[in-house]
Amino acid sequence: MSTYQMVSHENIRLLPGFWRDRCETARNVSLMAVYHRFRETGRFDAWDFGRKEGDPNRPHIFWDSDIAKWIEAAAYLLEEEESEEVELIIDELVDKLEQHQWEDGYFNSYFGHLAPEERFQHYTDHELYCLGHLLEAAIAYKRATGKDKMLRLLIRYVDLVDRVFRVEHSAGFDTPGHEEIELALFKLYEETHEERFLALMRYFIDTRGRSEKDRTYDVFENDPAHAQAHLPVREQTTAEGHAVRAAYLYCAMADLARQDKDEALLEACDALFDNIAHKRMYVTGGIGSSHIGEAFTIDYDLQNRTAYAETCAAIGLALFARRMSLNIPKRLYADVAELALYNGMLAGISLDGKAYFYENPLEAHPELFHLNERYPRVKEHMPILERKEVFDCSCCPPNLLRTIASIADFAFSQDDRELYVHHYMPCEAQTRFGTLTMETGYPYDGKIALTVGFDCEVTIGLRIPGWATAYALQVNGQPFKATLRNGYALLTHSWSAGDTITLDLPMEVRLLRAHPALQEDCGRVAVMRGPIVFCAEGVDNGAHLKDIAIRPEMPFTCAWNEALNVPMLRTTATRSIWPEKTRIYTSDPVKRIGASLTLIPYFAWANRGENEMLVWLLERD
Amino acid sequence: MSTYQMVSHENIRLLPGFWRDRCETARNVSLMAVYHRFRETGRFDAWDFGRKEGDPNRPHIFWDSDIAKWIEAAAYLLEEEESEEVELIIDELVDKLEQHQWEDGYFNSYFGHLAPEERFQHYTDHELYCLGHLLEAAIAYKRATGKDKMLRLLIRYVDLVDRVFRVEHSAGFDTPGHEEIELALFKLYEETHEERFLALMRYFIDTRGRSEKDRTYDVFENDPAHAQAHLPVREQTTAEGHAVRAAYLYCAMADLARQDKDEALLEACDALFDNIAHKRMYVTGGIGSSHIGEAFTIDYDLQNRTAYAETCAAIGLALFARRMSLNIPKRLYADVAELALYNGMLAGISLDGKAYFYENPLEAHPELFHLNERYPRVKEHMPILERKEVFDCSCCPPNLLRTIASIADFAFSQDDRELYVHHYMPCEAQTRFGTLTMETGYPYDGKIALTVGFDCEVTIGLRIPGWATAYALQVNGQPFKATLRNGYALLTHSWSAGDTITLDLPMEVRLLRAHPALQEDCGRVAVMRGPIVFCAEGVDNGAHLKDIAIRPEMPFTCAWNEALNVPMLRTTATRSIWPEKTRIYTSDPVKRIGASLTLIPYFAWANRGENEMLVWLLERD
Repeated sequence: MSTYQMVSHENIRLLPGFWRDRCETARNVSLMAVYHRFRETGRFDAWDFGRKEGDPNRPHIFWDSDIAKWIEAAAYLLEEEESEEVELIIDELVDKLEQHQWEDGYFNSYFGHLAPEERFQHYTDHELYCLGHLLEAAIAYKRATGKDKMLRLLIRYVDLVDRVFRVEHSAGFDTPGHEEIELALFKLYEETHEERFLALMRYFIDTRGRSEKDRTYDVFENDPAHAQAHLPVREQTTAEGHAVRAAYLYCAMADLARQDKDEALLEACDALFDNIAHKRMYVTGGIGSSHIGEAFTIDYDLQNRTAYAETCAAIGLALFARRMSLNIPKRLYADVAELALYNGMLAGISLDGKAYFYENPLEAHPELFHLNERYPRVKEHMPILERKEVFDCSCCPPNLLRTIASIADFAFSQDDRELYVHHYMPCEAQTRFGTLTMETGYPYDGKIALTVGFDCEVTIGLRIPGWATAYALQVNGQPFKATLRNGYALLTHSWSAGDTITLDLPMEVRLLRAHPALQEDCGRVAVMRGPIVFCAEGVDNGAHLKDIAIRPEMPFTCAWNEALNVPMLRTTATRSIWPEKTRIYTSDPVKRIGASLTLIPYFAWANRGENEMLVWLLERD
Repeated sequence: MSTYQMVSHENIRLLPGFWRDRCETARNVSLMAVYHRFRETGRFDAWDFGRKEGDPNRPHIFWDSDIAKWIEAAAYLLEEEESEEVELIIDELVDKLEQHQWEDGYFNSYFGHLAPEERFQHYTDHELYCLGHLLEAAIAYKRATGKDKMLRLLIRYVDLVDRVFRVEHSAGFDTPGHEEIELALFKLYEETHEERFLALMRYFIDTRGRSEKDRTYDVFENDPAHAQAHLPVREQTTAEGHAVRAAYLYCAMADLARQDKDEALLEACDALFDNIAHKRMYVTGGIGSSHIGEAFTIDYDLQNRTAYAETCAAIGLALFARRMSLNIPKRLYADVAELALYNGMLAGISLDGKAYFYENPLEAHPELFHLNERYPRVKEHMPILERKEVFDCSCCPPNLLRTIASIADFAFSQDDRELYVHHYMPCEAQTRFGTLTMETGYPYDGKIALTVGFDCEVTIGLRIPGWATAYALQVNGQPFKATLRNGYALLTHSWSAGDTITLDLPMEVRLLRAHPALQEDCGRVAVMRGPIVFCAEGVDNGAHLKDIAIRPEMPFTCAWNEALNVPMLRTTATRSIWPEKTRIYTSDPVKRIGASLTLIPYFAWANRGENEMLVWLLERD
């Protein structure tokens, strides 16, 4: 089995381009904007443990995870550029953690302060989820600054968890109702090489779906699948329940499968990944189509206007895919990660970095939204149409920031003979073989130039994305015939420093069609260019977006939208000329006339006020 | 203004054909089936006024209306064929009414027994609605049997209402929160010619939307439009709120406009009718698209899978349209009534007459329905996919029966110079001019033969339905050139007994397209033949109905489905051959192959078990 490791973002410097722009926005705008929103809403004050009944801003059971993800994002940004202000905030938080940590290691700003007697009693109440995120933050902060106090404190908490759960089984439940600690324990193991963390991780994974104790809880209308506890994990073949929980569990399963060379676990991971990618994923890489339980539903149930497709779930899917790439470098994994990152995830943040979507529908109709708002007591759940600065459950904003700030984690993997390039972004990477420099205008341009900075024989594997209809490969200016394996062009060569590899992926506009079981998308196409899904907005195209029909043979032109700083696609589509103004149905022929259609990247929608939006466009010959 | 009167069904004998079949089913199956369901659920026992706290089947505020509509249906059926059993049931009920009627005339099996102190205190609690239906029942029963006791008792109640509401203003509210009594008062006026009933009707209509008292109630999330009380009725131009309430109000407005020659009221009726017919009506004649308030929403918001389109609302629309035809014989009114009766209404009852739909979606997906059922506490509202024998709110079953049993009311109208034929059905009518006999296989065949049984000059107006692409007219076997006015062919002629008129309406299959604002229907067509909307069911066509595409140029053939006893339409459509089994999206070309498509009348759907159904079919050249 695999011996691949990712090249960690700490060893990669992003060069100017798409992702560095987003990291800059994260650093210069989002990080402190989220900080202030979290401060205003009491999330930071909760760590003072000073709340009295009646005070505003009652802490939530998951607030520690918001803080943790914020610290983690901050730590990643600190790697690139120091900030005394940010370190001060984090150091103060760590001091508070120390101050309010229980004698036995326990720490939780909700239970530790407001409901201490309920510690470890609620299967569904996110304590271990919070610890997981705190661990990820502590590891990140240690790596960024060398300061290990937070990690040392939290290891005491992990040891408590190990004793209570794995050794004594004395908690009110056996496994976390919201997964996350499992993958964090793996990170902790990778950081410390201490086997006991791996053992605890293994315990949680192996116990899930087998615990009688956990089954006594009424999880989401008595559906243990909500927390992926309906079956032992190795027997699971379809993605079920809460999509973020599912994705985080699958991440840990993929980690453990690789670590333990556990074929059965890897098989389950593969089945789950296939089920998601081939039956339960929006064309944007969004997953978890229903707001009921923020959950997966059934195969091909991917409704567009009501799509839940939580930002965090797209992130979770990308994280799962990245781990699967380490198990087997198969193109599908990186293709799915790419889809989720550029579309399902990035739509979650406004272009100015200040506002967020939790849900990411593929279709927006302000009139229907406001109609629904008329009846606050009986209205249905509907995704909002403009991003907000903070939510009650504000998991997505800091999750976005930490993922953007560590995006380079996705780029490479390596073992002692091979170096894979999964994702293309301008950067300079320190691999185990030496430096590799990548220059590209990706994702808007498909030309990728790599400059090798080492002298040795290595197989360099370049992903040829599933969307690429062709590719051209040169080494030192000469065509190079690589073998293609699992969607990767493998260049086995004795490299010398200064050697160049160029990969040219033609970025044609593609029309995607959906499986006929995908009811709402029948007769419709989604437009993609490279990894980017495009959409139509009312502000560019007027009303009745669903009537605008793409003619497959009509070419698209690509232009630049200066205001949004994103590319636009333009074509001549058709739309109906309705024969008589007042009639609603007609059997008379309905003429269609040419109409210009302008599309922008899906991730850039809803940045020009509330307006109609559509991904799946009508197709007519 | 108009002096038209309908030719009442009492003066029309249905001959064998579509509607007589349905009346026979109503008589032989439905009437007693509904009776038994109502008895089992306690509706009949409620008239014993003997309920004690803790007894099962606590009466509902609207149960009297269920009983009333059942009596009304029974009375219409009694006209055609006597039944001692049925009369006995009704006479016993009337005795109970007498027994439990208050000294001052009040009668209500809910308030009168369980909450007497709350009498006339709740704007939204259906007391006057129940009285309205009781009045309609009493009038029907008197006309059918000559027994007027029920009517005499109820007139005492009406006189109480007149005093409390119109004279003293001493009730807790000013107008009925659920309209119905207004149109019943008009029937009562027509029956008795007593002006005071008209005055009370006028009072309720004129006071609606002007009452400060009514505004103090929180009607459906503080939306007075739910009960059409947002504006004085003459200022209303869009159909708002609860669709059945709205339709019943509009019926009464149309009656009063005709009676009072009230131009302003007629203008409002016209605006409301136009708004419904041209912007807020399903292609099936269903109205009230949202389950939230069982209500109209906004123009062109006509979602298919979640369509509420209550059976009673389709009936209400047909009743409104029939009254508008009396104001002005304009084709649109009868066209809409026809659509609602043959489609939106008839879908509400199973072919065997035993089971009912309250909601009438235009698209059904059992998988999504059952997915939703998984989570009883948080599920969304979704229309059921198989008809039920009784509902908690079981307004639709007896409403269907009374409408079917009096369907001939829709056929004709007359004044002293003109006789209009609005709806085609085999029958023998006693008009003011004499007998008119109609033979036809309508709605499946467009040949209509009329035989005149009188000797005088009359203008006979025959509706040329909006759906007819042509028509041929003969009198005594010779082509007749009629003038066409408002969609009616007017045959002015000095008729002799034995004269024959034949009208030939070619029944071609038509593809209807929807206004581009009708989002879900863009790129799709509905198939109609004559007045019948057709639909595809999974049982005939397999899975993925939304992928099946009609080619406009392909002909349809018409065959007979013996099992369902309805016509079928067949054509060669296309469906996708999905290129590779496991992928969900593809930019490869997707081949389409010919596939036979079988359609059945929409009203006949869901008679072969739960299965997929679709009205709006994909269209591809």
